[in-house]
Amino acid sequence: KNLAQSLGIATPRYWAIRSASELEEALQQLDGKAILKTTEQGYDGKGQITVDNTVSANDIWQQLDTHEAILESFIAFKMEISVLVWRDSSGQMGCFPIAQNDHRNGILYRSFAPAPDASQHVIDKAQQAAFAIAEAVDLFGVLALEAFVTADDEVVFNEIAPRPHNSFHWTIEGCLTSQFTQTIRIITDAGAGDTAALGHFMMQNILGDDMSQLDMLEKNAEISLHLYGKSQARPGRKMGHFTQKIPS
Amino acid sequence: KNLAQSLGIATPRYWAIRSASELEEALQQLDGKAILKTTEQGYDGKGQITVDNTVSANDIWQQLDTHEAILESFIAFKMEISVLVWRDSSGQMGCFPIAQNDHRNGILYRSFAPAPDASQHVIDKAQQAAFAIAEAVDLFGVLALEAFVTADDEVVFNEIAPRPHNSFHWTIEGCLTSQFTQTIRIITDAGAGDTAALGHFMMQNILGDDMSQLDMLEKNAEISLHLYGKSQARPGRKMGHFTQKIPS
Repeated sequence: KNLAQSLGIATPRYWAIRSASELEEALQQLDGKAILKTTEQGYDGKGQITVDNTVSANDIWQQLDTHEAILESFIAFKMEISVLVWRDSSGQMGCFPIAQNDHRNGILYRSFAPAPDASQHVIDKAQQAAFAIAEAVDLFGVLALEAFVTADDEVVFNEIAPRPHNSFHWTIEGCLTSQFTQTIRIITDAGAGDTAALGHFMMQNILGDDMSQLDMLEKNAEISLHLYGKSQARPGRKMGHFTQKIPS
Repeated sequence: KNLAQSLGIATPRYWAIRSASELEEALQQLDGKAILKTTEQGYDGKGQITVDNTVSANDIWQQLDTHEAILESFIAFKMEISVLVWRDSSGQMGCFPIAQNDHRNGILYRSFAPAPDASQHVIDKAQQAAFAIAEAVDLFGVLALEAFVTADDEVVFNEIAPRPHNSFHWTIEGCLTSQFTQTIRIITDAGAGDTAALGHFMMQNILGDDMSQLDMLEKNAEISLHLYGKSQARPGRKMGHFTQKIPS
């Protein structure tokens, strides 16, 4: 059993892959599509290839160009969510309101929070999993989990990030204590702050592709704009984001 | 007529004072208490003396130690409020939600916003006055007005500050666009941002006298703490503030 299984946390079926022949073997067990992911340096859709059992394992393995990968079976999801849990030195824990995420080309496009379409069952499942992981790893700070929600409200976790997370940038405006302030509060032993949502919010990433919209975004009265000051705007590179209050 | 009068904005009765004899003359017309204020360098209760017509004009004038002052008749108020108006280069204007203020020893102690006890009549009066002043001075940026509200809901203005204002520090957490971001948006011609309140908030100043409470404040989960990094904590000096969400 891995950590997730021992904590009762559902994940997609997966295979550890270290060679083209291991990939070949795993592909034969595969029912439908899967994502082949490098175990390092993967983010924003980088280091990922979508495969099925019709592809050539040799070609794909050369294309990924790594020594270690995970083959993760594809989950048919109705919704993607993320949860950010915090835990302080005294073991006190809490979660920010759940975010509901849209990805485009493997990159987070938008987050809505508190997740407008998440049932109470989904919220409870997500928080239980986050608390279980936080205790298991003796978390000191914040940690994000990403999950798929299936048609029958199963919550299937596929990513973990032990840090503030893009899908919680809306907390800068949306909570009295943002994910960044919370991290600082906890690591300076000031104790955790209030992370209830101050309303309903939408966060949208600004990619290198979107820089022609900057003038328009700067003049948009409805948004709070954050630019990261990166000098080079490459396609798919996160250059900033904005947060908007949305009707409840 | 002065500017306020010509715009139909009520102020306390006042006298311009340039000598002990002018003060003596004004005191004779006074009915009840008044505040004698220097016309420069007055803030946080500094450069102010409360007087009535029993005091010695000579003594008081020497005590104030200035060449120019205003004697302002005391207003019996049930409530103090402030309004922050913004106006951009196209003449578009708006107000942040009205703040309701408590002062202690002439120094702002707390602001509550949106003002919990202000009637719609008071809100309208305050905003009308703010818009009138903003147009009259061709405001480019933000400007604060402070006012007393009398028992019969008269709004009597007594201070003007053409800048972000202490009583609107809660907008950092309380609005999508804070008073500081709004100032920057406007002066960079990005246009004004959304300044609706995200809930009900209380801002409290931290004075030099309060520094022994810092440890406790840093551990208070319910507040967002702002310290200004001033090296010397003198009594009455503003060292920081905190904002708290309060039930609506």
